[in-house]
Amino acid sequence: MNKKPSIKFKRAAVVGVGLIGSSLARALRERDVAETVIGVDQDEDILARAKKIGVIDHGFSSLDEGVKGADLIILSTPVGALAEICRKVSDCAEDGALIIDVGSVKGVVLDAAKALPDRIFFVPCHPVAGTEQSGPEAGFASLFEKRWCIITPLERNDAPYLEAVKQATGLWTAIGAEVEVMDAAHHDLALAVTSHIPHLIAFTMVGAADDIESVAHGEVVKYSAGGFRDFTRIAASDPVMWRDVFLNNREAVLEVLGRFSEELAVMQRAIRWGDADVLYNAFSRGRSLRRAIVDAGQETAAPNFGRDEPHDSGEES
Amino acid sequence: MNKKPSIKFKRAAVVGVGLIGSSLARALRERDVAETVIGVDQDEDILARAKKIGVIDHGFSSLDEGVKGADLIILSTPVGALAEICRKVSDCAEDGALIIDVGSVKGVVLDAAKALPDRIFFVPCHPVAGTEQSGPEAGFASLFEKRWCIITPLERNDAPYLEAVKQATGLWTAIGAEVEVMDAAHHDLALAVTSHIPHLIAFTMVGAADDIESVAHGEVVKYSAGGFRDFTRIAASDPVMWRDVFLNNREAVLEVLGRFSEELAVMQRAIRWGDADVLYNAFSRGRSLRRAIVDAGQETAAPNFGRDEPHDSGEES
Repeated sequence: MNKKPSIKFKRAAVVGVGLIGSSLARALRERDVAETVIGVDQDEDILARAKKIGVIDHGFSSLDEGVKGADLIILSTPVGALAEICRKVSDCAEDGALIIDVGSVKGVVLDAAKALPDRIFFVPCHPVAGTEQSGPEAGFASLFEKRWCIITPLERNDAPYLEAVKQATGLWTAIGAEVEVMDAAHHDLALAVTSHIPHLIAFTMVGAADDIESVAHGEVVKYSAGGFRDFTRIAASDPVMWRDVFLNNREAVLEVLGRFSEELAVMQRAIRWGDADVLYNAFSRGRSLRRAIVDAGQETAAPNFGRDEPHDSGEES
Repeated sequence: MNKKPSIKFKRAAVVGVGLIGSSLARALRERDVAETVIGVDQDEDILARAKKIGVIDHGFSSLDEGVKGADLIILSTPVGALAEICRKVSDCAEDGALIIDVGSVKGVVLDAAKALPDRIFFVPCHPVAGTEQSGPEAGFASLFEKRWCIITPLERNDAPYLEAVKQATGLWTAIGAEVEVMDAAHHDLALAVTSHIPHLIAFTMVGAADDIESVAHGEVVKYSAGGFRDFTRIAASDPVMWRDVFLNNREAVLEVLGRFSEELAVMQRAIRWGDADVLYNAFSRGRSLRRAIVDAGQETAAPNFGRDEPHDSGEES
């Protein structure tokens, strides 16, 4: 992986140095995609921490100063902050700069991007990758490897913009991701299915479990290996990021939630009336889908995600 | 772990040599808790496979023959088969035999156990452990280590029965589990929260995702790293086992499902009306509960369950 990348930026400004921003900063440096990496964050403490662990070369709390001289600007803040940042960036970004975001919702990002002048090139991106942890220390360079990054270009067909889309594609490819291009509305629906609703359900289940008075908090913790603990991973994700996702992808989320609730009602009825066949048939579908996900390199085949002891560990301890 | 166990059986008969049965068979042998381990299964192929990989000493497809001479009988079949097996075992088990089951529902097991004569000692057990895989090859001896096993004793207070409960406790402790005693109704509610409803939701979400026509199957697979893939693990669990759980824990499951649905409706309303505070507050609860589960040794602290590349793996490949 030490071969020269086919794409190289002089100065990358990462706006928002959290899990995704710091992972990108690390990846750009490790893969030699950017000469200098600037961190921009309102939180001075985050900048100091990011600098201390070597994720960024310099840090600025002011957007104006931070993006000065940058030929690549990465917006990695929660989606709710993007509209305001787009307005600010339209004034201070250098002519010809490539701007990408990493937001989990794309319709609102395209709306926000309408404020941008033609002299800068905004390419909306969504790397489908992450962990439940937050902050610059949680980032790592390989986060995007073998993961998909979805690009939802603006409605611009000028040659320099098409070239910018190519550059954005090259950036993601250089750090190990695979790129798919689609329109924003389809992105928002597909991600409601594969990401937003799973998170909503997990958040909701964790809250409901903790609220059932007759089952003690300690019991929920003790017996979580029965399946519940799997839900707590995504329910431990950043609450601000996820609040913004649901506020900004309302339509698609409500549509998919409606479908989920319908199916859940069918299961509830089957349980109430003891309809064994409905249950068995529904439960039989999981294995083949999981196998497809494992085969596609998006999941480990190890049981329990490989998080427990290895199989032949009879002699440990 | 090679110290002499404080409990030892001469002949253990494992009825149902699947994931849990074969894991118990392995653990009993590795920890020297049973001299001989017999496998009993209607499926001759499973017996042959279990014998080939050394999980059992001998295999019988007939329950009568299999439990002959056994001082320990482990019923590790799906819950739906337990009532009939209890009836059969009441005739053929040796006087004084300890019988345990491993079922995920306990109310129906206590009902089934009413058919048993006093000369044998049935102690209902539920080890809260497992993986999404099935069959004798999927089992491993350390499956129960640091996991909780819940014992829900029968309403018997005779001294030999109390001694049998102690023996069952000693068995689980010898293979690394921690034991908790509670009544069957409370077990069934607590496990509805920590295991049954999470499974039902995951099965339902996997089905719903695959059914949304406008999002292709391939997209669900590709973008599953957004959170969906976490759900597919428990949705890949054995469909017969889970069908039986829901058919046999109807009341508790419907109660907890009602609570979950209520909370989901609150979230749905908050999304529809853009109520940021409700969403933020709900999403903020996940981290502390997850931390408690990690601190209790029931979960790994590694991001993404540790299933991805290690953090500092910039140089792999």
